Amino acid sequence: MLSRADFQLRDDVVFLNHGSFGATPTVMLDEQRTWIDRLEAQPVLFHRELPQLMAEARHALATFLSCDADDLVFVTNSTFGTNVAAHALALSLSPGDRILTCDHEYGACIRAWNNALRGRDVTLDVVSFPVPLPSHQSVIDRVFQAVTNRTRCIFLSHITAPTALELPIAEICEEARRRNIITIIDGSHAPGQLDLNLRELNADIYTANLHKWLCLPKGCAFLFVRRELQENFPPLVTSWGTDGTGLHVSDFIDEHEYLGTRDVSAFLTTPMALLWMQSHDLSAIRRRCSSLLRQTIDRITRIPGFKSTHSDPASLRLMMGAVTLPESWSATKLKTWLYDEHRIEIVVQEWGERGILRLSVHAYTTSDDLDALVSALEIAAEHNVAVAD
Amino acid sequence: MLSRADFQLRDDVVFLNHGSFGATPTVMLDEQRTWIDRLEAQPVLFHRELPQLMAEARHALATFLSCDADDLVFVTNSTFGTNVAAHALALSLSPGDRILTCDHEYGACIRAWNNALRGRDVTLDVVSFPVPLPSHQSVIDRVFQAVTNRTRCIFLSHITAPTALELPIAEICEEARRRNIITIIDGSHAPGQLDLNLRELNADIYTANLHKWLCLPKGCAFLFVRRELQENFPPLVTSWGTDGTGLHVSDFIDEHEYLGTRDVSAFLTTPMALLWMQSHDLSAIRRRCSSLLRQTIDRITRIPGFKSTHSDPASLRLMMGAVTLPESWSATKLKTWLYDEHRIEIVVQEWGERGILRLSVHAYTTSDDLDALVSALEIAAEHNVAVAD
Repeated sequence: MLSRADFQLRDDVVFLNHGSFGATPTVMLDEQRTWIDRLEAQPVLFHRELPQLMAEARHALATFLSCDADDLVFVTNSTFGTNVAAHALALSLSPGDRILTCDHEYGACIRAWNNALRGRDVTLDVVSFPVPLPSHQSVIDRVFQAVTNRTRCIFLSHITAPTALELPIAEICEEARRRNIITIIDGSHAPGQLDLNLRELNADIYTANLHKWLCLPKGCAFLFVRRELQENFPPLVTSWGTDGTGLHVSDFIDEHEYLGTRDVSAFLTTPMALLWMQSHDLSAIRRRCSSLLRQTIDRITRIPGFKSTHSDPASLRLMMGAVTLPESWSATKLKTWLYDEHRIEIVVQEWGERGILRLSVHAYTTSDDLDALVSALEIAAEHNVAVAD
Repeated sequence: MLSRADFQLRDDVVFLNHGSFGATPTVMLDEQRTWIDRLEAQPVLFHRELPQLMAEARHALATFLSCDADDLVFVTNSTFGTNVAAHALALSLSPGDRILTCDHEYGACIRAWNNALRGRDVTLDVVSFPVPLPSHQSVIDRVFQAVTNRTRCIFLSHITAPTALELPIAEICEEARRRNIITIIDGSHAPGQLDLNLRELNADIYTANLHKWLCLPKGCAFLFVRRELQENFPPLVTSWGTDGTGLHVSDFIDEHEYLGTRDVSAFLTTPMALLWMQSHDLSAIRRRCSSLLRQTIDRITRIPGFKSTHSDPASLRLMMGAVTLPESWSATKLKTWLYDEHRIEIVVQEWGERGILRLSVHAYTTSDDLDALVSALEIAAEHNVAVAD
């Protein structure tokens, strides 16, 4: 199994915020450098071989995700993927059309949609999900109650960023397809935390980070687009595309994959990184982390005023969870105090009208780390250190 | 002075194509890894510090380029920069407007313009420059003879990619400003080959690669935008932007600089890399390379049928030059033969109706490398190995 020794995290920090930027094992960074060195040995030869190398990386990823390699392109991050999708889809929208999203989405992606829709007279509707999140059926009902006959797309996260909640994406995609509504899923936090099967999930568009829960080097993500939608799906950045010297897999791959001279080393680590994570028993890591997460959430929610964002925390199966803070607490005060006094790095932020603490557990997280968090929160409660002024 | 030992190039290849992808000294790759390791030690702290680190990188670059640090953003490559500029400028164009470019431009950038202008009824005019390139005054005259009263922008390379020619950009920018025409300069090949002074050059928009002739790690380039144009200059990829937690320098910097989790390590090598190149006497490297280039072009053009693209090759001051092939020769045949028989990696391609060989000389290039090229071309001429079928 993986441990802290496989990562490069500082020993003097209790690092409980894997969710924001991930963390990468040294062996994957070394693999990245190996690709850079291969390029540097003969840069032109490397670029002649690159279309084949990228195809191999796509194939390894497609096997992992259960989809076709030619329906995937590598992108820098899922916000980039969302930008590409929003701009491409915006081209086919008409004035009066609507897009549906929810109030647990990542702010940068909502900005991307607003930017892509500017000047198009298309409305972004936002459905509200309460916290703790009600049953999956209730979430599905809320989504489709908010759908109108002008709703063309549904944009939702697979696992929400601020609240660490898994949404019932498969069911929503199925019903959306029945209604001819395009689904765009932001899976930023999904690969590594969930067993993804894109074929079964059946989203039209799915974008997600590999540099987060799968721990790949920074700047490694993917964008999946269902074959039927690929025809009118231009890239945001145009380079040689179909006029280039690639393998000419399809216009979609050609236009999106080769974006001029850039650092592709993170993408090329994919085959090794996936194999390595699996050889270190990713499922066992996940089980251990979920179990630690459940215990910790249970301990935190015994402190008066803390509530899980999940309505049944005993059934949590993710590696990331969230609790709302006692009503009178300031998120900023708590965050500052946790880092300054206890060197605990964790997300504590205002979300809507409440404070939320989001906790990440990964292979390097120890029971001691989690004990430190719980006891710090107990002290905070006992001494009112985080009560808003 | 730098030598081949500072780079990682294979010893069994005569590498004369620096121009396509550059080559990076090991010390810069190690610096890049140092930044990655700093991130990995505490990813969240690193991202809190990142706006300041990026500002420091922009300041170092601005000093090198003689411009204001707040008029610069880092981008992946100059094709990316051209895409951003083309999309931003397209927003302010009206039906019937025209953009002027020339027939020596990089194909991917012309594709970017065509894509940005799609559906806008804006014409891309292409002025032709003959080869060998006539006097600078003649180039300037051709440009402004092609300008119409609807020409809104001029897009030109500072050093042309296929033909390795320096265009009289300062003079063109000056005259364009007088006529209220926006200048967008693709300086892909300029930093490192020319002493750039963006203040004196006075282009409205200038984008260029640092990973090419300055040898930085791949994926490091910049986009300069004159202050007055920054207000309506949206990024292609929208992320947190002005809603983020950066230094809030300006909307322009905020919106373009932080594009979510990505690998910024190449950008952050900039201060060290510029200092290092200067401490290794970049001017002396350039003088030595230009001198070797002039001698080599002189030797090649003594082979019957080879002609310099430059009308006065004795005055060449770049590190990259080009010659047109004898009329009956096939560029593909020559390229294949040079690599297969002599392990010479060099650009030989069709350009318009002729074959062109483009030669790069950098710090690691030896006289032996250039001798190998000249003698191979002499053999090719003597034995007609590259004559088209």
